[in-house]
Amino acid sequence: MLEREIDMSGPGAPIETVEDEDLIASDKVEGTSVYGSDHRKVGHVHNFMVNKRTGQVAHVVVSDGGLFGLGASRYVRLAWQDLAYAPELGGYVAQITKAMVEERGRESADDAEMQIW
Amino acid sequence: MLEREIDMSGPGAPIETVEDEDLIASDKVEGTSVYGSDHRKVGHVHNFMVNKRTGQVAHVVVSDGGLFGLGASRYVRLAWQDLAYAPELGGYVAQITKAMVEERGRESADDAEMQIW
Repeated sequence: MLEREIDMSGPGAPIETVEDEDLIASDKVEGTSVYGSDHRKVGHVHNFMVNKRTGQVAHVVVSDGGLFGLGASRYVRLAWQDLAYAPELGGYVAQITKAMVEERGRESADDAEMQIW
Repeated sequence: MLEREIDMSGPGAPIETVEDEDLIASDKVEGTSVYGSDHRKVGHVHNFMVNKRTGQVAHVVVSDGGLFGLGASRYVRLAWQDLAYAPELGGYVAQITKAMVEERGRESADDAEMQIW
């Protein structure tokens, strides 16, 4: 579904399928664009946190990437279920906006609170 | 617990804490070394597959990285719970060996079957 190239793991390595109907690869989620409820780009998936014992995703960290790619990024945490993939945008849509992230995002992913908007 | 450097997400960005007692970051799991039950290195975590709906990790893809980093890699799939972090090794330990991966691993992560040894 996403258009970006998939890393090859080495010379001669086959290209992996990185998702199927039910599953998606961890490294395909990371870096994927996130759009707001207004369909304007908010940022991208920085990474996501997984429960060490159970393997359940606890939350996703979204970064705005800084202003024009400069300056400190802002981070918010969203629930996995709060990100819906939109093929027409090539990214996830969440019920947030760029302004909300700028205003309420934290400068460290550690400090980013779970956002319930 | 891991020693390797964490990527900064941009100029001036704070260094993230990438794990706590219960959670670990997706991009910290990827690339982490995997050791066999004999404590000899088997390979590394290629990525892991997550259920799109529930956010539950379905399985982890381990690659042997090819012979001396050359040639096609071999892939096996393991359950999340089958990888135990060993601080003294700086990686995960699984009940597999390099020889098992060479013999039974697949050339594509897609084709790799869930390994129950």
